[in-house]
Amino acid sequence: MNTNPYMKSFITGLVCPKCKKHYDHGQIQHLCDCGSPLLVEYDLHGAGKHINPESIKNRSANLWRYAELLPVQDEANIVSLGEGWTPLQKLDNAGKRYGFGRLLLKDEGIIPTGTFKARGAAVGISKARELNVEAVAMPTNGNAGAAWAVYAARAGIQAHILMPCDAPLITRNEIVAAGAHVHLVKGLISDCGKILARSLPAHNWYDASTLKEPYRIEGKKTMGYEIVEQLGWKVPDVIAYPAGGGVGLIGIYKALKEMRELGWIGEKLPRLVAVQAAGCAPIVHAFGKKAKESEFFSDSKTIAFGINVPKALGDFLVLESLYATGGNAIAVEDAEILESVLELARGEGCFICPEGAAVFAALKKLRAGEWIKSDETVVILNTGAGIKYPDTLSFDLPYCPVDGTV
Amino acid sequence: MNTNPYMKSFITGLVCPKCKKHYDHGQIQHLCDCGSPLLVEYDLHGAGKHINPESIKNRSANLWRYAELLPVQDEANIVSLGEGWTPLQKLDNAGKRYGFGRLLLKDEGIIPTGTFKARGAAVGISKARELNVEAVAMPTNGNAGAAWAVYAARAGIQAHILMPCDAPLITRNEIVAAGAHVHLVKGLISDCGKILARSLPAHNWYDASTLKEPYRIEGKKTMGYEIVEQLGWKVPDVIAYPAGGGVGLIGIYKALKEMRELGWIGEKLPRLVAVQAAGCAPIVHAFGKKAKESEFFSDSKTIAFGINVPKALGDFLVLESLYATGGNAIAVEDAEILESVLELARGEGCFICPEGAAVFAALKKLRAGEWIKSDETVVILNTGAGIKYPDTLSFDLPYCPVDGTV
Repeated sequence: MNTNPYMKSFITGLVCPKCKKHYDHGQIQHLCDCGSPLLVEYDLHGAGKHINPESIKNRSANLWRYAELLPVQDEANIVSLGEGWTPLQKLDNAGKRYGFGRLLLKDEGIIPTGTFKARGAAVGISKARELNVEAVAMPTNGNAGAAWAVYAARAGIQAHILMPCDAPLITRNEIVAAGAHVHLVKGLISDCGKILARSLPAHNWYDASTLKEPYRIEGKKTMGYEIVEQLGWKVPDVIAYPAGGGVGLIGIYKALKEMRELGWIGEKLPRLVAVQAAGCAPIVHAFGKKAKESEFFSDSKTIAFGINVPKALGDFLVLESLYATGGNAIAVEDAEILESVLELARGEGCFICPEGAAVFAALKKLRAGEWIKSDETVVILNTGAGIKYPDTLSFDLPYCPVDGTV
Repeated sequence: MNTNPYMKSFITGLVCPKCKKHYDHGQIQHLCDCGSPLLVEYDLHGAGKHINPESIKNRSANLWRYAELLPVQDEANIVSLGEGWTPLQKLDNAGKRYGFGRLLLKDEGIIPTGTFKARGAAVGISKARELNVEAVAMPTNGNAGAAWAVYAARAGIQAHILMPCDAPLITRNEIVAAGAHVHLVKGLISDCGKILARSLPAHNWYDASTLKEPYRIEGKKTMGYEIVEQLGWKVPDVIAYPAGGGVGLIGIYKALKEMRELGWIGEKLPRLVAVQAAGCAPIVHAFGKKAKESEFFSDSKTIAFGINVPKALGDFLVLESLYATGGNAIAVEDAEILESVLELARGEGCFICPEGAAVFAALKKLRAGEWIKSDETVVILNTGAGIKYPDTLSFDLPYCPVDGTV
């Protein structure tokens, strides 16, 4: 019902973007020997003979419509809850107010689990099933753990999730409800990661930490394919993204390059923008210095906990995507984020997560500074639904007497 | 991006299902003079010459794909956040365990605002805009108010929402964030309704209370069209629905009758099942007595607050849909609901709301009693995402020491 009749995957292998070493996708792989994440390679020439924008057009409304460009080889291994093909919404009021030519919101809140983490989990867990994985393990601040837990449950794979005790309660409940083993830690996600690293030797667990398995990126990259397809196979001028681990940005950039090689889009790529919180802006600092990698951002703090990542494993790939597309990196204050949450809810009916709102806050600045021109098409990548963040806002409200009127 | 190129609406007017009086859809209408809700009528003969299942097939993945059978006449009035075309998920594990031929979940959690209320609000607000409404008002237990508030915000329509002070905080925040005027009441939704009724004469507000405006049903009925289309224009044997106000069931039954008249499906309709909580089961009691209407259910109480409706305005329409299709009505205990939430999350990766889980609990009984046969196709209508109910579950979890292993 939710998946396409399965079509051949054109996967050919895995490659290290740093040292170019190749790895076999038929075996479980994690990082390269040199410590870099691995990327999936495809026979794009072969795929291009098999499919084209026209033949994709009428496929099912989920991310499996791009099956030839995804790593799962046997349809039977697909674990799906109907994820993907999220709406690309017009933000006409906000667009007019700030003088954007065309402002759009790719709304990843309308997806299983309420955040874009579902894409990475769907493809990651499907490929894990194909590789006969019996148990996955990962540290999480909440949303990724929730997504991996529910997809693992659907696949019949055991999940071990390590999370800070102050991660959002709803994600904790979601993970426990899905039958995962939850390990609460009085510490940060980095502490959870260290505990997991120490624990792995004693278990036969598949390490699903961000970028330590190569397939999550492939799920995330479908956001790039969808944006372009939803615009009639035209690229926007700018795609702006709230960068924590940055996997989505890495994925979107990968998708754009694949589409260019397939001949589905022209040479020119959208300018990619990484948005961070001022309280945790390692990519922004590195970009300002034209550095290839970021430095650990000490004492990081922001209400947008999804982008509270002091040092991302894939930072060099994020930065590469910005430099290569003539992009940008910009930080916004928490107060600006909260203001933008309300502005989009009131002006557009879009109640989105703080991370997505951070992007809007940043774009206002980039437009005001004319880095974005008045005739450009700009896409905000919103990574999750506002309803998943019940504690971000609080309001004092008056009561109406039961026998009164309003 | 989210809407189809607009096609002609074949709306012809409004009719009272009780006294058959007709009303003009070009004017604002609420209840019939006789007190009954009104239903929308279409020129189905004309619509059938204009569209058919084949021509709908490749339209956009949202409820506006059925535009000819919706009441909005001018495309410019459509207020959309990309709602509809939610996944129809296979529940193979649960199906096997209880001996279902084919068990499916229509997952209305994957929609703007996280509940199926978005459908009614999208169509209701769009039509309100067409009727030049400047302000809407309604009582709510949370989810409906949230949906109407965000769609009103997108339409530039003012919203006045009256809600009990103990309605879920996330929906309250959603409503305030969307800029609606919230009136908190230390009482029940029925008290909110009474305050609104007393207040209406002093304001030029459009009363959007359940079934007091005729267009919410039209949004909800698209669930019926989608289920049938997603099954390749075949009807399932059973569609089971958590009945509070029952608008969804009324809408699905209306859609089925329209599709039958259009010749898109055969004579036989699915058996419709209304599921209620044992602590609030007026429809189940009425069904047991073969009554045409329900009686007020005193001191109602259930964790599934979305179906805590002691007496629904459309009860006679709900009961008619059950009788006419050879359907059923069944109540389940709160403990069974909680057990079913966990069973579906663990067994299928579907973390759904208590109302949806109540349906699964009921179907297990109907299958065990052979009211459902082993070769039948059964659809569970899940009305919302589990993540919108952060307080339904609570778990005691052990801590892992920061310097430990797991």
